[in-house]
This record gives sequence, C-alpha cells and structure tokens, in this order.
Amino acid sequence: MNVNGKHFRTIWLKESDPSTVQIINQQVLPFTFGILDLRTVEDVRKAIKDMYVRGAGLIGAAAAYGMYLAALEAGAASFEKDLLAKGEMLKATRPTASNLAWAVDSMLSKLAGRSCPLSQKQEEARLAAQAIADSDAESCKRIGLHGLEIIKELSRKKQGQAVNILTHCNAGWLAFVDYGSALSPVYAAFDAGIKVHVWVDETRPRNQGAGLTAWELGQHGVPHDLVPDNAGGHLMQHSLVDMVITGADRVTRSGDAANKIGTYLKALAARENGVPFYVALPSSTFDFAMRDGVKEIPIEERDPSEVRFVYGKTRNGSLTEVQICPDSTTARNWGFDVTPARYITGLITERGICRAAEQDITALYPERADE
Amino acid sequence: MNVNGKHFRTIWLKESDPSTVQIINQQVLPFTFGILDLRTVEDVRKAIKDMYVRGAGLIGAAAAYGMYLAALEAGAASFEKDLLAKGEMLKATRPTASNLAWAVDSMLSKLAGRSCPLSQKQEEARLAAQAIADSDAESCKRIGLHGLEIIKELSRKKQGQAVNILTHCNAGWLAFVDYGSALSPVYAAFDAGIKVHVWVDETRPRNQGAGLTAWELGQHGVPHDLVPDNAGGHLMQHSLVDMVITGADRVTRSGDAANKIGTYLKALAARENGVPFYVALPSSTFDFAMRDGVKEIPIEERDPSEVRFVYGKTRNGSLTEVQICPDSTTARNWGFDVTPARYITGLITERGICRAAEQDITALYPERADE
Repeated sequence: MNVNGKHFRTIWLKESDPSTVQIINQQVLPFTFGILDLRTVEDVRKAIKDMYVRGAGLIGAAAAYGMYLAALEAGAASFEKDLLAKGEMLKATRPTASNLAWAVDSMLSKLAGRSCPLSQKQEEARLAAQAIADSDAESCKRIGLHGLEIIKELSRKKQGQAVNILTHCNAGWLAFVDYGSALSPVYAAFDAGIKVHVWVDETRPRNQGAGLTAWELGQHGVPHDLVPDNAGGHLMQHSLVDMVITGADRVTRSGDAANKIGTYLKALAARENGVPFYVALPSSTFDFAMRDGVKEIPIEERDPSEVRFVYGKTRNGSLTEVQICPDSTTARNWGFDVTPARYITGLITERGICRAAEQDITALYPERADE
Repeated sequence: MNVNGKHFRTIWLKESDPSTVQIINQQVLPFTFGILDLRTVEDVRKAIKDMYVRGAGLIGAAAAYGMYLAALEAGAASFEKDLLAKGEMLKATRPTASNLAWAVDSMLSKLAGRSCPLSQKQEEARLAAQAIADSDAESCKRIGLHGLEIIKELSRKKQGQAVNILTHCNAGWLAFVDYGSALSPVYAAFDAGIKVHVWVDETRPRNQGAGLTAWELGQHGVPHDLVPDNAGGHLMQHSLVDMVITGADRVTRSGDAANKIGTYLKALAARENGVPFYVALPSSTFDFAMRDGVKEIPIEERDPSEVRFVYGKTRNGSLTEVQICPDSTTARNWGFDVTPARYITGLITERGICRAAEQDITALYPERADE
C-alpha cells in the first residue's frame, strides 16, 4: 500500500544488499515513518519480540526472512542443526500467533535433507522466504476481493449510504506484507468507489488502532473515526455499525479465533445487536491441530508496564511515555482473547468465505484436515 | 474515607469560612492530592463541567453546595428568580447524571415560597446542601452494608479464597461524598476481614479507573490490579471474576442503567459467562420519569481530544498529555452507555437489593412511583 503516495511493503530485502532485511519501524508510527535494517537472526528476534514488526502475517514473513538470515549464518556442517535452533528461538518470541510457527516450520521443511552446497541452500532459503512474503500479500489481496462482496451487499441494502465498519486493533497492511486481512476488503471497497466509514478501536494497551489503523486508513484516504475500545457496544446498540471485521492471530479447526484482547467483547455486542461479525485471515493463521480455542490457545501475558504507561507525542513534538496510575499500582496484561466460533458470522479467507465451523473450514482446506 | 490515614470527604464547607466550598481536586489525582476553594456558583459550574469533581453522587452534592452559593449571591427581591436561573445553569453542565437535576430541584423546592428574611433563606440553603451531602454519605454507607452480604456469600462459596470483583470507572468514595456506591460493599467486606481482590478497568478515555479507583483502593489497602478495558471478557471466560459491580449515572424506573461508556460490554460478558452483574446506586440516581433507557437517557458527547490525548506523569515527574494518533485523525467521544435491565442481576440501593425491574424498584420506592 502507499505511504505519501509511494508503494511500500512492510518487509523486504534491501535492494543494494540482499543479505539485509528492511522493515517499516512500527514502534514509532504514527509519529515517524522510519525504515530499519535487520542484519542478523538476533535483530529479527528482537524486532518481533519488541514489536518493531507485529501482526499475524508480518510476524510470519519476518520469521521466514529471519530463517533466511539464519541460513546465511549457519555452518556448512551444522546447517540443519543451526536452523532448528534459531527456528526455536524465533518461535519463542510470541506464543499466540500461529503464523510464526507456521513460517518457521515451512522454511525448515523446505531446507531439510538437502545435499547441495551451502551457498545453494542459502539461495533456496532466500527464495523460500520471498515466496512466503509474496504468498502473504497475494492471500491478503484475495481476502479483500472476497470481503468486498459483503460490503457491496451492505452498501446496496443501505442504498449507497456509507457502510460503517468497526475494527479492533490493526489487521491492515501493516500487520501483513501488504493489503492486510480485516482492512483488505475495506480498501477494495473504497477503491471500487463504495462509500465506507471505519470505526477504529484505539486498542489499549498498545493502541495499535489509534497509532497504526488510523494512520494507514488516513494514508489511503478512507474516512474513519477513532473511538475508545469502550464505545463499540453503544455504537452497535444505536445501529451505528453495519459490520465488524477483525483479523486473527490463531484460528482453530472449529473456528474459534484468538485475536487482540477485547475482540471477544465486540463479538458479544455484535451478536446481541444483530451486527454481522467477520474474522479475516489467510490460511497461515489456521491451527488445524487445535479444536477448543478457549482451552487450548496459549495467551501471551505481556509486561504490565504496557498498561501502566501510554506512549505518544507531547505538545512540543517529542515522543514519550506517561504513567496513568499511582506509582504503587500493579497491572496485568493479557495480549489476546478468544472469540468462540458461535459468535462469528463468517471467516473471510483467501479461498473464499465460510462459516466458522469445522466442516466448512476443512471443506475449504481439505489438504490440511489431517494436520 | 482516608487519605494518608486522615479522614476526608470529597466536598465540604471550609471551617474558617463557611461561604467557601472546598473539594478534592480530582483533575490532578492520582499524582497530586490537592484541595480547591470554590467561592462562586461559577466556580462550581466550572468544577463540574471540567470534572474537578465528577461521579454521580458528588455531582449532586456539588450542585447542592452550588445552590447554597447561589443563595449567597442572590438578591433579596429576586431570590427565587436568581436561584432558578443558576439552577438551570448548573443542570446544563452534564446531561447524563440524574443526581445533578435531582439535587438542584431538591434545593429549589426547599427554598421556594419562603417569606423569611434573606439571611435566613441563606442559612436554610446551607443546611439543605449539608443535608444532601450527609444523606449521600449515609446512603452510600448503607449500600455497602447491603452489598457486603453478597460478597460474604461468594466468599463462603469460595471457602475464604479471595473474591474477585471487577469494576468499571470510579464509583468509589471519590464519586460521592464518602464511601462510594460500587466500592462501598468492597470496603465493607475488606473491613470485615473478607479476602477480596478488585480488577480495576482503566476506563478510557479519561482513565478514572487507573487514576481514581486504583488510588482510593490503594489508600485503603484493598488488593487490586489495573487491567485495560479490553480484558474483562477474557477474565470472565477464564473464571477470574466472581462478580461485577459498577455504579450508575441514571437508572430508569424499569432498571435500565446509564453508566460510563463500556459498562454495557462488561454486562454482556458477565451474562454470557454466568457472572453476577450488580449496579450500586443511591436513590438520587433513579429517574422515575424514564422507562426505556436506551431510547430516553441523553448520552453526553464530550470533546474528542479526550480520546486523542492521554494525560499522565512523565518519567521526570511532570504532568502532561500525549497524543496517541496521527495529527489528522478525528475521534468521537460518547461518555456513557446504557445497560438494559435484563443484563443486571440486581440493584444495590440504600434500602436493600432488588431486581432491575419496575415492579421491584417501585416496591422499594413506593413514594416515588408517580414521579
């Protein structure tokens, strides 16, 4: 998507030096647009852990490029062992996102048991990482085209009045390599000339809605308003939301969806008020090995300081954190919650839209039913 | 309640000069404990409007003291007319809280049609304001004793393990003259030696949970943890909440409750997960003239800058606001939402606990059934 009119992906290999991975630094958005060089697996690990990159698809792509850097760092004799170890290290950074493990395992399976020279293995690692990134972008583009049909229909029902779409967190192009999951249908609709308006949940504690979703919608010119996470119930009660679309960090084979903490509350309000609630995801987000999301999906608990402090820009333009509670107050900080499948109207995937139910999901992905 | 071991109310007449109202300045809590003098009705209007005082009961008490200052400012010949005009001015500050109009109207009806000298009317105004403040404190104390029974029973069921109570916004003693509504039962339980733990919703956009509830619980020594507003669904899904208690800004005769935006989302999660959801309120919060809360209760829309900026303390100790979104991002800021009666397990009032249903409410307040 575009930044100040120029096309960017969120992650790519440096043109002048393909052994360097470049990323948009999402820690300083929306205040500064900066690009960071990642030269080692350790750089990638830190970038994922400290959320210079974040979002289901982008974490996967970053892990894939990380495994490419791991291939560059690996010894000829210990290639597979080195890759396995670094893969485990990358997987340990964020426990909830299934794209992470999926990307690492994809890279490992492509590079395992090859008897070619080291340099060829490294070249294959580069191509494999590139393929994962390209496939993420392509999947997101298709998600947009499928989701577009839902928005088109709502627009028709509203006789062309703006379709109000609520989204939580950032599942836009910044959360993937390009296009996004939840926002891809919004961009597709906007580009097709359909009137849309997005309610952007600020998404405490890290404010990815306020900082990232508002920024990328603004860059693309999509009308939107920022609201506190608390507002969604009131909005739906007063018919100010026509549909909810969120992304997901892991979706089980039965359709339970882990996503940013607070998503579940919006799903409850949507069900209660008859508002369709969609989860958009590429297939890399499915975890076919899990069935009961609430019981099985590991929920990352993050540093309480993310709750106690809020990051932003002061009136004089400097970036800083402010403490919002007394010095002695303790906090808890779960990163995700799980929305059970029964609250989800449908899953928007790159292969089409299906019900959040095992039968329908495995029908769409028959080749993965036995994972 | 106590501040650093010394007893305070949130509002009182200055001992050395009873024509001055004093308040705890809630704008700078939890970082600074300061007391402000209010000498004119205009001072009181600003204090309510700009939220130096806030919370259902305290707004009512402040309005009552404001009407006393109005009596001091009124002319002998134009006494009633002056009071009526200043009462209207005070009522216009915050549209949702019903205690405000209730307190102004109480003062007006007590002072109307009196033929005594001006100085006697002024003395009567002082006594009437004092009586409203005392009655608020007394009601809150009783709410605590009634609510205590619910917590006692939960504690018994949990065999003495800590009872986990989630609350939204601040309905503690800072929101009233003393004791609080939602937190009064918590203080009563804590003082009775029952193990309790409070989940404190930070309550964006103004963070009254993080700033005020965490502060007053800390001053009293009640164990608690701050959580983002987004966390409640996850907590309830995992049986980490035994009950929810919130306050209210207006409750209709049928039991629909307006409270801080986001309360409705917690009520939905509570119902869905079988967690009891109580609303605590003194009778001054009832609005017997309204029945359908979602349709009838006016919802205040506040300045969007409250959403775009977060106020807090920097690492070097100064107090400032930080912007959390791009410069060009617009926001919307509704202050309250309405929780329909069907999601409310019970109302905890100074007269006892009742179902959130017209029959039960009017049975508890038969003298107000025709309002």
